[in-house]
Amino acid sequence: MSSPRVIGVDAGGTKLLAGVVDGDLEVHHRIHRLWAGAGREAVIEAMVATVEEALRAAPDVARVGFGIPSLVDWRRGGSLSSVHLPLEGVPFRDLMTERLGLPVAVDNDANAAALAEQRCGAARGASDVVMLTLGTGIGGGLVLGGEVYRGSVGAAAELGHMVVDADGPECFGGCPGRGCLEALASGSAIARDGAVAAERQPDSALGRVVAEDGTVTGTVVTEAALAGDEVALAVVAHAGRRLGAGITGLVNAFNPEVVVVGGGVMALGELLLAPARAVVAERALAPSREVVRIVASSFGEDSGMLGAALLAFEEQRGRA
Amino acid sequence: MSSPRVIGVDAGGTKLLAGVVDGDLEVHHRIHRLWAGAGREAVIEAMVATVEEALRAAPDVARVGFGIPSLVDWRRGGSLSSVHLPLEGVPFRDLMTERLGLPVAVDNDANAAALAEQRCGAARGASDVVMLTLGTGIGGGLVLGGEVYRGSVGAAAELGHMVVDADGPECFGGCPGRGCLEALASGSAIARDGAVAAERQPDSALGRVVAEDGTVTGTVVTEAALAGDEVALAVVAHAGRRLGAGITGLVNAFNPEVVVVGGGVMALGELLLAPARAVVAERALAPSREVVRIVASSFGEDSGMLGAALLAFEEQRGRA
Repeated sequence: MSSPRVIGVDAGGTKLLAGVVDGDLEVHHRIHRLWAGAGREAVIEAMVATVEEALRAAPDVARVGFGIPSLVDWRRGGSLSSVHLPLEGVPFRDLMTERLGLPVAVDNDANAAALAEQRCGAARGASDVVMLTLGTGIGGGLVLGGEVYRGSVGAAAELGHMVVDADGPECFGGCPGRGCLEALASGSAIARDGAVAAERQPDSALGRVVAEDGTVTGTVVTEAALAGDEVALAVVAHAGRRLGAGITGLVNAFNPEVVVVGGGVMALGELLLAPARAVVAERALAPSREVVRIVASSFGEDSGMLGAALLAFEEQRGRA
Repeated sequence: MSSPRVIGVDAGGTKLLAGVVDGDLEVHHRIHRLWAGAGREAVIEAMVATVEEALRAAPDVARVGFGIPSLVDWRRGGSLSSVHLPLEGVPFRDLMTERLGLPVAVDNDANAAALAEQRCGAARGASDVVMLTLGTGIGGGLVLGGEVYRGSVGAAAELGHMVVDADGPECFGGCPGRGCLEALASGSAIARDGAVAAERQPDSALGRVVAEDGTVTGTVVTEAALAGDEVALAVVAHAGRRLGAGITGLVNAFNPEVVVVGGGVMALGELLLAPARAVVAERALAPSREVVRIVASSFGEDSGMLGAALLAFEEQRGRA
């Protein structure tokens, strides 16, 4: 293996994905870990152990990139705050550099995912790109003028918290907002609306599953929708139209060439994207609505890990 | 006068403001014109005549900058489309350069206003700035990382068309959207809501004025609110909270140091800004909500003209 390689690590709220990645973004070694509910020390030790395991498989690796679900102080590489992992106040880059003995790059996970899609994925060749990651919550990433946009203290691109329905439902996960995009079109929102729909229509496929299981998750609604249940399909289509209203605002604000939609909820594919695109086509301003492509992510669950690897590559080039 | 001077021209839908501006942004000669309803030729001739008049007063001027209410192709200086002036398809920069015999810079008027506030006004010293201009409609400007952000084809920063109430009222002025910020917090929205309120409460001061005049404008509601009429004040406070919901999304998306609010509707001052700030403080994410200042524009009606002058100065420096 002559091309330089790095390790990319995508640290999510419940799981960690690491890979040895070469300059063509090929992944040569892949490690998954689950760590739901782990404390700060355990999370950090798991990251270190994972990278060390990858290093044993690929001793040529000279750099490591991390995407973490935190507000990252980009210049200092610290984790200022984090809703999904206990990393608040951790001087992440310095700590990992010391623990691993290798140069470390770190950024917010959704920024990393946006970078991967813009450099090498669904938005390749575009200079202005908006990324939404639809999971339990909704994350956002922005590449503007070819560079990741982070805002004045690194807290930008919280695109799941654009207000789309000012009097709408309370948002999730510690956000004090109402009617944020996340409150309308995330996996949590689909689960909430699915529970209401199941109760109203107990004879539907969704209603029967819910009556059996007792709880509704986004995955339950997704499976019912993919199986053709009309009640579940209506819930998903409604979320898709709300997603479209949010994307309409983003298209008018950013005039991007591409909006990339990723995350686990995108298992719904066109069931979610088609109504979103229809709303944008109807309601966004010309010429932005004609310019923009609204597409599924190329890398799916890998985009954060590949983006973390790209961070490591780009920092290497910047310092070379 | 030893410092170099330029002419800045702010071309609005109903009026034109031009000034001879020096390097300290002092205005030495000022020309106003009204031109509501003029056709393309008349608009262009009025611009040429205005600049020529300013040139007679300041023959040392070597450059001219224009802010126009158009989607501007930034690289070529063309007006791609325009809702408020008949300039669609005009190769603006080339045409004006030929007519005036001087180098010409041109950009969207709200971009110019944002530039003025960021370089020298209410957002001086900040590198990430969001500007909203509240008039008949709502315009937007973005300075990100210290530079005007224009998007992939120059159509970005239509911040008046962020969707804030997905099932809300139809938007104004040729926008196909619903519940855009402009549909909720512009002068037109305040006039619409004022008409409804006046009809419901004919004994209020606002109701009596409307019964006399027959029509409600944003100015009528503004005057009634400034005079203390509670019905008008409630209309304005509602618009202010909607403005706050829109700014909440912008704060979460851009993590700006400053949001500058300008335009004629800002005659309402704190009557509009105080409820907007309260919503942002309550609903935006930390730390963005603590970082951001939400302030009135420094230059008021002059910001577009001063920004146009800055465009001319910056193009001069870029090419020097």
